This record gives sequence, C-alpha cells and structure tokens, in this order.
Amino acid sequence: MSYTPTGYAPYDFANRRHIGPSPREMAEMLETVGAESLDAFIDAIVPADIRQTRPLAWGKALSERGVLERLRNVAMKNTANASFIGQGYHGTFTPPAIQRNIFENPAWYTAYTPYQPEISQGRLEALLNYQTMMCDLTGLDIANASLLDEATAAAEAMALCERASRSKARAFFVDHHCHPQTIAVVATRAEPLGWDVIIGDPFTDLVPSRVFGALFQYPSTYGHVQDFTAPVAALKDAGALAVVAADPLALTLLKPPGEMGADIAIGSSQRFGVPLGYGGPHAAYMAVRANLARSMPGRIVGVSIDARGNRAYRLSLQTREQHIRREKATSNVCTAQALLAVMASMYGVFHGPDGLRAIAERIHRKLVRLVKGLETLGFPIQPASFFDTVTVECGPRRDAILASALREGINLRPIGETRIGITFDETVRRSHTEAIWRAFGGGMADDDLTPEYRLPDALLRTSVFMTHPVFHMNRAEAEMTRYMRRLADRDLALDRAMIPLGSCTMKLNATAEMMALSWPEFANLHPYAPADQAQGYAEMLSDLEAKLCQITGYDAFSMQPNSGAQGEYAGLLTIRRYHEARGNGHRNVCLIPTSAHGTNPASAQMAGMKVVVVGVAADGNIDVADFRAKAEAHAENLAACMITYPSTHGVFETTVREICSLTHDNGGQVYIDGANMNAMVGLARPGDIGGDVSHLNLHKTFAIPHGGGGPGMGPIGVKAHLVPHLPGNPAAGAFAISAAPFGSASILLISWAYCLLMGGEGLTQATKTAILSANYIARRLASAYPILYSSAAGHVAHECILDTRVLKERAGVTVDDIAKRLVDCGFHAPTMSWPVAGTLMVEPTESEPKAELDRFIAAMLGIAAEAEAIVAGTLDAEDNPLKRAPHTVEDLVGDWDRPYSREAACFPAGSFRADKYWPPVNRIDNVHGDRNLVCTCPPLESYAEAAE
Amino acid sequence: MSYTPTGYAPYDFANRRHIGPSPREMAEMLETVGAESLDAFIDAIVPADIRQTRPLAWGKALSERGVLERLRNVAMKNTANASFIGQGYHGTFTPPAIQRNIFENPAWYTAYTPYQPEISQGRLEALLNYQTMMCDLTGLDIANASLLDEATAAAEAMALCERASRSKARAFFVDHHCHPQTIAVVATRAEPLGWDVIIGDPFTDLVPSRVFGALFQYPSTYGHVQDFTAPVAALKDAGALAVVAADPLALTLLKPPGEMGADIAIGSSQRFGVPLGYGGPHAAYMAVRANLARSMPGRIVGVSIDARGNRAYRLSLQTREQHIRREKATSNVCTAQALLAVMASMYGVFHGPDGLRAIAERIHRKLVRLVKGLETLGFPIQPASFFDTVTVECGPRRDAILASALREGINLRPIGETRIGITFDETVRRSHTEAIWRAFGGGMADDDLTPEYRLPDALLRTSVFMTHPVFHMNRAEAEMTRYMRRLADRDLALDRAMIPLGSCTMKLNATAEMMALSWPEFANLHPYAPADQAQGYAEMLSDLEAKLCQITGYDAFSMQPNSGAQGEYAGLLTIRRYHEARGNGHRNVCLIPTSAHGTNPASAQMAGMKVVVVGVAADGNIDVADFRAKAEAHAENLAACMITYPSTHGVFETTVREICSLTHDNGGQVYIDGANMNAMVGLARPGDIGGDVSHLNLHKTFAIPHGGGGPGMGPIGVKAHLVPHLPGNPAAGAFAISAAPFGSASILLISWAYCLLMGGEGLTQATKTAILSANYIARRLASAYPILYSSAAGHVAHECILDTRVLKERAGVTVDDIAKRLVDCGFHAPTMSWPVAGTLMVEPTESEPKAELDRFIAAMLGIAAEAEAIVAGTLDAEDNPLKRAPHTVEDLVGDWDRPYSREAACFPAGSFRADKYWPPVNRIDNVHGDRNLVCTCPPLESYAEAAE
Repeated sequence: MSYTPTGYAPYDFANRRHIGPSPREMAEMLETVGAESLDAFIDAIVPADIRQTRPLAWGKALSERGVLERLRNVAMKNTANASFIGQGYHGTFTPPAIQRNIFENPAWYTAYTPYQPEISQGRLEALLNYQTMMCDLTGLDIANASLLDEATAAAEAMALCERASRSKARAFFVDHHCHPQTIAVVATRAEPLGWDVIIGDPFTDLVPSRVFGALFQYPSTYGHVQDFTAPVAALKDAGALAVVAADPLALTLLKPPGEMGADIAIGSSQRFGVPLGYGGPHAAYMAVRANLARSMPGRIVGVSIDARGNRAYRLSLQTREQHIRREKATSNVCTAQALLAVMASMYGVFHGPDGLRAIAERIHRKLVRLVKGLETLGFPIQPASFFDTVTVECGPRRDAILASALREGINLRPIGETRIGITFDETVRRSHTEAIWRAFGGGMADDDLTPEYRLPDALLRTSVFMTHPVFHMNRAEAEMTRYMRRLADRDLALDRAMIPLGSCTMKLNATAEMMALSWPEFANLHPYAPADQAQGYAEMLSDLEAKLCQITGYDAFSMQPNSGAQGEYAGLLTIRRYHEARGNGHRNVCLIPTSAHGTNPASAQMAGMKVVVVGVAADGNIDVADFRAKAEAHAENLAACMITYPSTHGVFETTVREICSLTHDNGGQVYIDGANMNAMVGLARPGDIGGDVSHLNLHKTFAIPHGGGGPGMGPIGVKAHLVPHLPGNPAAGAFAISAAPFGSASILLISWAYCLLMGGEGLTQATKTAILSANYIARRLASAYPILYSSAAGHVAHECILDTRVLKERAGVTVDDIAKRLVDCGFHAPTMSWPVAGTLMVEPTESEPKAELDRFIAAMLGIAAEAEAIVAGTLDAEDNPLKRAPHTVEDLVGDWDRPYSREAACFPAGSFRADKYWPPVNRIDNVHGDRNLVCTCPPLESYAEAAE
Repeated sequence: MSYTPTGYAPYDFANRRHIGPSPREMAEMLETVGAESLDAFIDAIVPADIRQTRPLAWGKALSERGVLERLRNVAMKNTANASFIGQGYHGTFTPPAIQRNIFENPAWYTAYTPYQPEISQGRLEALLNYQTMMCDLTGLDIANASLLDEATAAAEAMALCERASRSKARAFFVDHHCHPQTIAVVATRAEPLGWDVIIGDPFTDLVPSRVFGALFQYPSTYGHVQDFTAPVAALKDAGALAVVAADPLALTLLKPPGEMGADIAIGSSQRFGVPLGYGGPHAAYMAVRANLARSMPGRIVGVSIDARGNRAYRLSLQTREQHIRREKATSNVCTAQALLAVMASMYGVFHGPDGLRAIAERIHRKLVRLVKGLETLGFPIQPASFFDTVTVECGPRRDAILASALREGINLRPIGETRIGITFDETVRRSHTEAIWRAFGGGMADDDLTPEYRLPDALLRTSVFMTHPVFHMNRAEAEMTRYMRRLADRDLALDRAMIPLGSCTMKLNATAEMMALSWPEFANLHPYAPADQAQGYAEMLSDLEAKLCQITGYDAFSMQPNSGAQGEYAGLLTIRRYHEARGNGHRNVCLIPTSAHGTNPASAQMAGMKVVVVGVAADGNIDVADFRAKAEAHAENLAACMITYPSTHGVFETTVREICSLTHDNGGQVYIDGANMNAMVGLARPGDIGGDVSHLNLHKTFAIPHGGGGPGMGPIGVKAHLVPHLPGNPAAGAFAISAAPFGSASILLISWAYCLLMGGEGLTQATKTAILSANYIARRLASAYPILYSSAAGHVAHECILDTRVLKERAGVTVDDIAKRLVDCGFHAPTMSWPVAGTLMVEPTESEPKAELDRFIAAMLGIAAEAEAIVAGTLDAEDNPLKRAPHTVEDLVGDWDRPYSREAACFPAGSFRADKYWPPVNRIDNVHGDRNLVCTCPPLESYAEAAE
C-alpha cells in the first residue's frame, strides 16, 4: 500500500460543523488565554471536586446522513392517521410558502426574542399582525404576542382574574365542558395558590359571588355553542371576571366573546397552519379588554416611534414582566411561541378573513353531511347546532366503531363509555366522511351534497373582522413570498451574525437537526392519538431521556414543561408534592440568591413558596454564611433552594456542594437551574453535585432554535425519590403543567438529533470550547472593559460580564448606547444590565468561528475607543456615533450636519462592508411606546402620514 | 338554513396564488386598456382562425394540499434502491445546509441568468468558485460555469476539437470504455456535421493522423485507470486535440488530465452533492487550456472592475455565444446548470480539498474491502487497480446474482452477458458491502477492516488543488450558512421583485410545485435503475405528456432535451431523420426569419442544415412574400422552417397558417419555437395551426425556476408522422441528444404539479392574464416609450418592445443606462436590445400583482422624466443618475460632489424605501473584463489590495 491517506474525517459533525473554531483557531485561542492545552485549561477552571468521573458515551456519533436515516427510521414507526379527535388540536394545512419561507427559514427560526427592537422590526410586524387578528376575532381590545398553549393560557387567565377582580372570593369556576387538559392545568395552578376550582355547568352551577372569575369553553370540548352573555353579566355584577376559551376559527362564523361581554379570551391558534407535532409547539393567544392591558401576562408588541419620528415596533410594557418583578411577579411567563404565532399570523394574511371564513364554512358543511348520514343510521347526535364538533351516542357498539374507524386510518375521540366525539378540520375530505360512515355501519354514501348549515342562528357573527389592509393584501404567492422576505430581511438573526447573549446560549441550530420536523410522520400526530401510533415518538422520547439522564446524573425526566420557566415551576411543584407526600406540606420556604434569574422567584411564588433571598458576596458568589444562616433559620419550613450553576455571574463557584449539603441538612430539596448547563455537559452533572431536580433549557444547551422568541422546551430531571411526583398526562386529569403530555414534543427531535450528531465526546468538546471562547473574549476585552466576576485564578465559565460602567462614568456612554452601536457593527447586543445593571453579559457559545469572535472583539474595542474619543474631546459628548446609533440609510441619504463622518457612522470596526446589515429604523423611543399604547396594526392612514 | 355562505374558494391556486392581479386589479387593468371584459379583450388580440375550439380539461384543479398528496402517492411508486450502477451517476449526500439554503431557497432558485452582473454578484462568486475548483481538479487553465451533462459536454468538446485542431481529418476518436450514453450523444452530434466517430481502444486503435481529436474516459466506465499521456502526446504531434472525460472526485486522488497533456477535460459534478433525480439536473463541467478559452462553449464567469475600480464579477466573452453568432455559432449552448453548479461549488467549499479527498479515499477503501471478499469467493475482478469501479466476471450465475442484489435493495450494473459492474459512492455503508457479498453467495462478512488501497501507484496525484482560501474557510455550519446568505443577499431574484424579461417568462415558481424535488423517492433514483423501480416517474411522465399533448395539439413528446436549445436541436434532428427515412436526405434548407432567437440558426447549423434567412416587414411580421419566394426557390431541398409564435416581436401574426402551408407545400416541416407558448396555452395550439414539431421551454411557460441560469427543460412535441424518429434511450446506443432518457427528469415534477394545480381553466386564465398585463404595461408606457410593434388594432401579445432609442437621440440615454437605473429602482432590467437593438422587451407574465406592475411603470416613467430633465438641462448630460447608475451604499458614504442629490440617486420612482435592494457594486466595466481575462478566484492578496 503506497497510498498515504489524509486522515481527515469528512463527516465529523461535532468538530467540523457544530464547533465553530477550527483546530488551528483553537490553538490560537489557547495561546491568547495562556493555556498549554484545552484539557489543562478546563482543569484550571472547573473545580476538581465536581468533575464527573465517567465520560459521556452512547456509541459513535452519527454523521448528518446517519442522523437523517435514524430519524427516518423512527418516523416510520409513527402512524399519522387522520385525527378527528379535536380537544383543542386540529389537522391543518400549512401553506407551502409559509412552511418553506418561515418554518424552514433560518432567518426566522434562529432569531432571538425581539428585545432589541431596531433589529427585529420584521418579526415585530408579524406579531403585531397576530395581535390584531386575535383582537378582531375575539372582539376584544388588546392581545398579547402568544402564550405557550391553551391550557397554560387558561391558568394565566385565572391568575389575571384573581388580580383584577373586585371579588374577595378565593375560587375560580371552570366550565365542565372545557378541554380536560385545560381543567387539569388550571387545577394544578390553583392548588398552591390556595384557590378552589369549581367545575360545573355555567348555566346551572355557577354562583358568581363565590368566584373571582370563570372560564367557559366556546365551542365546548363536546361541540356545544352556547351564548355566555348571561353568566358573563352575572359575573360582572359580582365583581368577577369572565374568560372564554374560544377556537379562533369558529369565531369567523360565531359571535365573538367580546360581544358576550367577556373580559378575557384565550385559545390556541394551532389550526392556523401550525402542524400538530404530537402536542406542539403551537401559539396560544390571550386577548383582553383595554383596562386589563397592563395586567396581562406575556409579551405585547406595540407601536412607537424612532429617533426620526418614524413608526417603529417594540415590545411594550416590559415592566410587567417576571424578569423585572421577580418574587412580586404574578406570572413566570417568559417564553412566547413567536415562530408559531408568526406562522399563524401569516396564515391569516394568506387566507384573509374571507378565506378563514370559507375554510370554517367548509369544515362545518362537511360535518353536517357526516351528521346527516349518521342520523340516517339512527345514531343520536349532540348538539343540535354546532360548528366543527359533535358527539355520537353509540351504546355498547362504541368500541367496535372506534376500532373500525382505526382500520380506516381515522382517529375519533372516545368519550365516557358509550360516546364518540368527532371534530372536523381543514384536512377533512369526502373519503373521510365515507370511511366514518362505514365505521358506523353505514353502506354506500348518500350522495346528497347540497350544502347545509347547522350553526346556531342566534350566535352567528355579524361584526366584521380583520379589516386591516394587511389582511387584504394581494394574496398572490409572488406578493406573499416577497412580504415574508421583506420582513425577514429587516431582522438580524444567527444566520447572519453571532448573537452573544449571556445566559441565552445562542448556538448553532444545525439544518440536519431541523429537517425531520417537516416530515408528516412527525408533524401530523395528534397529542392524544392512540399510543401505538406514536411508537416512533416513544422511542425518541425514551432515548432522549436516557441521554439526558446520563448527561445530568438524574434518574428520570419529564418532558412536559414547554419552556424553561415551566420547568422551574414543574420542578418546584414536584418538590412540593414530595414534601406533602411525606407529611411535610408545611415546608414552603425557598432560598434564592439575589443573582438568580428573575423567573426563579416568580416560579417559586407560583408554586406557593415563600422566597427568602440570599445575598451575594463581593466576588459575586453566593454568600455561604448568609445561606447557612437562612437555611438554619428556616430549617423547620425549608422546602428548597434554587441555585444556578455555574452561577449567573458566569463563574464556577467552589462552594456548590456545601450549598447543597446545607439545604439537604435542613430538610430542603435542591433545585439547580439548568440555564447554564452549556458550561457543564460532559464535565459535571447537577445530579452528582447535590441537585434533586433541574430543568434543562433545550433551546439553549440542546440546539433548539429560539424562533424569534419561542418555542422553547424545559424538561425536568429528578432524582429517583422525586419520580412519583412528576407531572402526568393532563388529558387524564393528572397533575399537569401544560396541555400536552410531552409538551412541544416535535422539537425534542432537534435535541435528540443534536445528541446523536455530537456523541458524548463531541458534547464534552463543545462545552470545553464554549468555556474557552468566553475566556478568550474576556481576555481580549479586559483592557477596555473590566470583567466583573471571575474565579480566583481569573477565569470565567462559559460567559463573562463586561463592566461598561466605566464608559458611563468617563464618557457618559450607557449600556444602551453600546448595544445600539453594536447594531451598526452588525451584532445583536449581549445581555444588557443583567444580572448587574450597567453591564453586558457575553456568551459566545462553542459554535462561533474565531473570526466572528474577533469581529465582535473589534467592535467592542472600537466602541471603547469612541468613548475615549469623547473623553479626549475629539468626539462631541452628545452628537456622536454612540448616542446616535444605530445609523440607517435614511441618515446617509439626508443632509449630514454631524460632527463625525458618514463613514464613521456606518462602518465602525467589526462591521461588514458590502454585506452590512442596515437596521430599518433609528433608535426607538421606549417611553413614547408605553405612554401611547397601540398594540394592533395602525390604520392605513397613519402609514400614509408616516410616509409624508 | 339561515346562514349565508361567503362563496369564497380558499384553495383556488390558479386565481388566488399563481395569477398575480386580484379580481379587482384585473378590472382596473381592463379599464386602462379599454376592454369590456377579459374574453372580449383576448378575442380582439388572438386571431380567430387559430383559436382552439375545445377548452383544456383534465378534471378539477387540485389544491396545494391535493397536489402534495398526489405527488406523495406517485413518490411511493418509486423505489429508491442503493444504486451502485455508476456509469456517470453516483449516490451522494447533499449537506443539509446546502439543501435548505440553496436548493430549497427561492433567493437562489428564482434568480435569472447573471446577464445583469451588478445584481448577480452572489451567484457569480459561487460560479467562479466552481470554475476554480474544476480548473484545479483537472489541472487545466480555464473552466466554464457548467454545461448540461457529461454526454453533451463530450459532444461540445468534440466540436471544440474540430474548430481548434490543425488537423484536416474529419473523424473523432472515442474510447470504447466511455460511458455508453456519451458515445451515443457524440455519435448523434457528429453525424449531421459529417464527422466520423471511431470507437476503439486508445492504446491500440487510435491513429492520431486520422482524427481531429479524441475522447478518453478516466476512470473508464468499467473502472480502468489508465495513463493517457502517450496517446495525448501522439495526438498533439498530429495536430489533434485530446479530451479526457474525468470524474472530478477521482481527480482528488489521481493524476489530473492536465498533467497528462490533455487539452480539454469534461465530466459531471453530480456527485458533489447534487441528487441523482432520475437523470438530472446536474452540472457538467468543461475545462481547457488557456489557448482554447475564447473558443470554449458555455458561460464563463470572469473578474472585472466596477466604476469605482473595485473587483466585480461578470460573464466574460459573451461575443462567443450563440445568441450573437447565430448561424455562424459553433454551439447552441444557451442554458447552463447554474443552480447545480452552485450546489457543487458549495459542496467543494463545505468539504474542502481534504474532505473531498477523504471522501474519495473512503469510497475506495470500501470497494477494496468488497473486492477482497469477492476474490475470496473466487470471482475474477477487473481491473487490478481502480478507484471506485470494478467489474466482476460471474459466468452463467450473473442474472441470479443481480436478482439477489435487487432483493437486498441494491442495483448493480449488468455488463455484457456474464459481467457485473459495481461503482461505489459516498453513500455506501458496511451493510451494503455485506449485502453484496451475500448476493454473490458469500456467507458472513470477513471482518478484516484494515484499510487497503489499490490505486494505481503511477497515477497517484502529487499536485495540490483547491488552494484558494475560499476552499479553506472555516467549515463550521454557522460560517457556511452565513456565507450562503451573504451571497444570496447580493442578488436580486423573483423572491424580491418582478423580473420583466421579455421572452424569458419569469413567472411564479410556487413552493408547492418545488417541494417534491427534495423527497428521497424522487431525488435518489438512478437514471438507469430498472424500470420497475421508477413506476412513479413513469406515471408522472405519461400524465405530463398527455397534458402537454392536449395543450399543444401534438401527438407525442420526448422529454429528453434538457434545455430549450436542446429541444430545437432534437426537433430539427427528428425532422432530418424523417426526411432521411423517406429518401429525402438531401433536404437540408431551413428557413428562419431574421427576428428569430439566435439559437434557432445555431441549432439548425448543428443539425446539418443550411440556414436561409427570411426578412421581416416594417411592421415586424414575417415578410410573407419573401418567405414564399425562398420556400419556392428552395423547394427541392427545403427541410424545415423555424418560426416563433406569437412572434419574437410580441405580436400574434395573422399569417401564421399561410407560412405553415407554404412550408408544407414545398416539402418542408414546420418547427414552431415554443418560447412564447405562455401567450398560447389554452387559446391556440401549435399543432393545430400547422406545426409539426415544437419544443416547450418548461422553465418559461411551465413554472420551472430559472435557477440563476439553469436548469431548464425543452421537451419536444411532434405530430404522429415524426414519432418514430424521436430520440431514444442513450444508454442503449440510440439516437440521443442528452445523457439521460428523460433529460433532467426530476424537474418535470414542477411542470406536472403546475398543470395539476392550475387545471385547464386556470392555465387558460393565466394566458389571458399574461396578455392583459403586457398590454396594460404597453398602454401605460406608450406615451414615454413608443411600442415598437403591435397588431393592426394596436395590441401586443404577452410582451411588448419599448423603443428607448428616442431617449438616446434626445438625451444620450442608452438602453444600458436605463437597465442600470432600474437596479436603483429595485428591478431586473427587461430584455435588452433583443430582438431589436436599442429597445427593451418587457414580459410581465400573469404572476405579477398589479402593484408590482405599477411600481415598474413608475420606475420607467421616472427614468423617462430624468431623460427629459437632461433635455431640459436640469440634469447634467453626463453626471446624472442615469449615467451613474446603479448607486451603491459606497456612493452615499463617500463625499458627494454630484449635481444631483443622494435622495434622487437612491430613491428613484418605484424604489422601496426601507426595503430597498442595494447592489453590492457600481456599474461594471465589461471591456476591462474581456481584455483582462481572469476566470478563477483571484488570489487572496488581490482581495487585500482591493480592500485598500
């Protein structure tokens, strides 16, 4: 053999594709940080006493082709029947233009939450369209930009009722015809807060004076379409609030909740073109009367103006949010379902009000035809008038009929012992109707196709909706596609630049990890389909759970939490239930350091715990003495502590085992927040160092894209003693924190593919690289920006906090100025003023090539130099590129009377030249937006005005 | 029933999604053109005597969901076996990032050929990478930006040899070990040109003095890897040229053709990540020595400078091309395979030279292991040293072994009566090797996995390749994705704006039509897979043929031509063979009007015909008297006429039947060029009005996207008498004009989906709308730009020619100035100076919403107003926005000393404001590029210089 092979591994995903720095770049970075080798460097940073002893291992990492084959193989084990189960989930058809140009487009799915509005105008417009659509459909004034699912939205609505009602009652009424998973989640939420949930018939069982609010389902889970005007009025008289859970498609035909007097409407927009995905992700909506706007949970997109006075969008009323209100928060809602809300809004634009109404009509007509056939066969059908859902009384033949339908490839819903529920949707065809007839014992089809309507006459919608021009734009695909492209181009996402957000771990979302989500075998499964149709999902869930257990040192995982905050909440409830089961129901104190994520205290509050705040020492680490004192002081009632590791200050604290022991010694359970798990995978395991429960942000550490502000997934891992107390199946009425058994199940495929592609060794190498990259940035920037916290040896973990207050003091340059100037450089800003005001927290992740890190470093050093120029007087203190950032094309085109050049304005250090990103607006006025709250699409005239 | 339905059809693809103007907009446009109704308007335009009598009909149009279901159903009838057939087609793995961000990205696939280089810098860079890669791999100096397939590239190479050789010989030698389809296509090409093709062993049968060139295959179709240095030298001595058909992946390990002294290398880049697609589309390459550059067919991307002296890319040496040289053309090559060449180039960037080499090594090692097992079983294997292909002598067991392999899901290649060919590729796995062993009667695997190489020692590659930095960029997916996005953003395609190119029919390429191309059941079929594995394709081909027959009035179609020019060529050869079969082989005169597409005479020349040019009257129509005179004068030898209908002047000539009769009366056949079929579908049929054969540009009329300059498809329809003379299966040695039986079969799915979605009625409505839109533009612009040709009633067909010479005369504004100014407005220019110099031909198609037509009209009127301002003296004659267009951000940033404002420069009428497209370069210097020919990536230093 004379040939000398190259020794190159062409399909090595971990080291070649996911990890950004090349081997040569890694060597350069190690030299900069003064390390001999990566391993030696890591050994110097991660405390020896917490290092895991066995490497992660689950066989050879797969190639991209290998993972797609594995996914294909698993997909084939699912059966995507036609599911006419309903219960809040519906078959739908995603318009291909939306599927390809949004769902599968990295410009949309890799974007971050639009906290930096100047680089987020595209998705803010799409979300404003969503809010406008939901306001119009529900007949209410203000909608948010989505919530996690219908059931959690109902729970949020209950809490909103409690806050806003004048009633002193401590109970909440729930329509017995709500979806069962909604009832379960509401009940779970109410319990720790000490509220009773009364389940009954709104027309016979509701005593308004005894409740602070009530929830009705419209149409009901069994298909009833009832007018709630009377009970709503009665509630109002009693000072209580009314919530209607409404199907938005039904509202195109039916009188909206707002016209019944309801204060709040919630529901799911899944059937607006968002695939079922075995439970999610989908966007829930919430719409409220204007007086409730400032109490509404979730994100709200609003209209403001920029520095030129032009219209610009931004997130409004952020002071309501949990990350600011902490233990005073009334909700821990942190994630929206932005990508899915965008899809639903585009579905609305694509079809317009006429199209939506026609789709609803078509569904109804087809159901009427089915019903007529079943009536001919002698089956009693309820209700007499309906929209898309009926139930059929089948007597003892019920199970045989269900089985016959299954043989036809159709899932129907068993109700009670003798009934079948049928909910039609956009995907129904004549062949389905005929197959159902056959299942019910009917012969050939009656071919009477005369359209017939059995909508309730008294509840037909008379008001117009979606009158805004955006819902009446030309619906040619040429125009639709260009609209989606224009919006995408206004935004800056990972597909163009690093997003170095501390704590957010904006790493690569590899294409190979995303592709299976579009496959019908994964996309079209109903969450309550029979288990034998979801064997592929079961295999994936089980294998992913095993891998996460190995990674974390826990014994089991619940995949139900569909956001990180949901994970915290689920974990704390699990602890609560554990204590209760042992007769320690009184344990309700939760120790949380001041440096914690704001969701920690908010979640603890929701779990019925009393938050006791623990101080932080000057070096940024938890004050162990204070922790000990408080743990001991509350030993009788200690339920838990919540810590983040490595700390939110970006440091591997050496006292973590001591903190855990102190908690355990005093009867508490340890919750380790998994937000910073990207610094631990393969190096240390929370389950080994003392944790009893953790959530993992799969949208941070495990490669699920942020989707412009959701979806996320926050499954929780627990030690064996907690396993009996984990959430169960919400549809079976179990303790449950979200609507579907496995949360947003379909995106778990991404994390699974990520684990398979990386292998244990690759994941570990990624962790090490993430730590190296953060230290590289810290080292390079330390001369200009003090690194606020580091270990005794001067190291940070996987992120670093740059202290920018020095620029403020010396040059009047704020952290906001720096963030906006970074837009000129083509970057999303790092995390601002968190966990310490006046700082920037930078997390590069392992996925960024060194050239991109260097570009960011150049940008930050350039900004420091501009600040120095202010100090030196060569730049004006007010009229300088920092204060006037970001700069737009409008600045260039107009007259230029500034004391710095156009060149300096637009091409600061680090920016691309030919491929520069141009923000579509100048700096946005936040105060104006909150003072003048406009949260729906402005009327067309105002566009004309703005153009003048 | 009290409910009143909306009567809206939400899933109507034709009228809602494909056809751009909404019903309201259609009404406005009809008013502008002064028509009562669309039908009345069409009746006034399309001559009554050619109107078809029966409407198109093939059942109800499908919805988008319906068409995807139909496609899925057909897909399931294909069997995507592992195909180790080789023969120039190989399994490959498209990196997901390339699949999603290029193959499935409208920014890439809806772009036009980069004739307007300022808005095409992204794909020009990608194609330059392709050329550089091919030069490096082959060891030659200059490569073109792709050809249609390996077989046609071989035929082009033969023609190039004939032009460039000093030999007087009239024969071409072809290695008997070339792929059979290559031999067939070369033989087909040679025959009409009077060249002999000598097939034999290069080492024993080649007599250099008797040939003008020779073609060798490397490695051969049976796996031999031979050093052609000696025969190449002998050819050179005899004044003949040497062509090597080489597998580019093999060249990563083996001595390249250039180092053997070859003048030309050709081959397929399919295995660089481009799916098999049952035959295509894929990109072939051609690379030549520098002295042949100006004779090379196909497009060549070159480096030039823009008005600021910055580097800019453009197409070089266009004066070589058929549209300029017409009947003097030496090739009719018009389409490249741009999208596929871009994919292959990105595959090269993705893997780099190390990765490509490692992939080649891996394939080879796996084949060696297979061979060792087969040797153990006692099978004789040839050759002794090889790359990826061997043949196995099986004796009488051959067919049983093939059948066993089939049962394992593996296709092998039958050769002769007793041999089997095996070609390994990137997709091979250990399980395949073991299955093949089983098929050959082997038991369990020998588990000796020691790597072994059986490459020919004397032919190992020693030279480096792909040394340019672009092939050594950081290969992290983050970086790769951003690179693809940056390039895409530099270009302007249909996903951002109308491309009103006359004759090019840049209509909507709907997403639903594109999706099935990514499905493995369509993507992974080898063109020579057994027919029973391609039943889905067969069903599609047969149904599409039936629909095209109905649309055109022809009796049968050949799907083989993989471009429009190939269609012309195939159609003329069919006519030629028809005449020959009737003993009229002497008929060789082809009448072509001066207004014809340049490819018409070029194709006729290639088909061995003598072109006789017919004049055009002052009104732009064919001069019937001249036609009659020439038809009669050449009656003895008349073979055919070639006409375009409606004419290339955009008019429905009323004399078309007379022209056809004159041709028939004088013994000729009528070729009707289908370029303008978008004005006819549903209204008139070429087969009814006298055509004997037509090609259809499926990439114009039938929704296949242009891919930035290919792929295309040009199937030909013929009347029954011509059917026996159509092309056959190239691999069976039949008369054939491209390498695969059905050309680029996979993209036929697009046209089929288009027909299914539109239905006959929708297609007809589209035609009418296209005509209306063209007339609307003509009417609106006529005051500023005279419409060069129109019917007696003042109408145009589906396109209109704007006479811009008036601006030249009055204000010195050239057609080029207008085109570049349109870039400032965010438009691709209309077709420039064709068919008449100094004009613009505008074809809006039916897919553009009226708002986009109006935006274009505003832009054109704005340009006319600027010209008037020059006349009036308010704009300088030289330093004005027209002469200095397009304007870039660089113009804005720098000092501004122009006599017009930045605002006027950058935001002319019709341009978007916030969403404006910015070209990355200023106007490009064409002359500089041709004078200083650089057709590979410039060295890194030159980038540094440019940056200074």
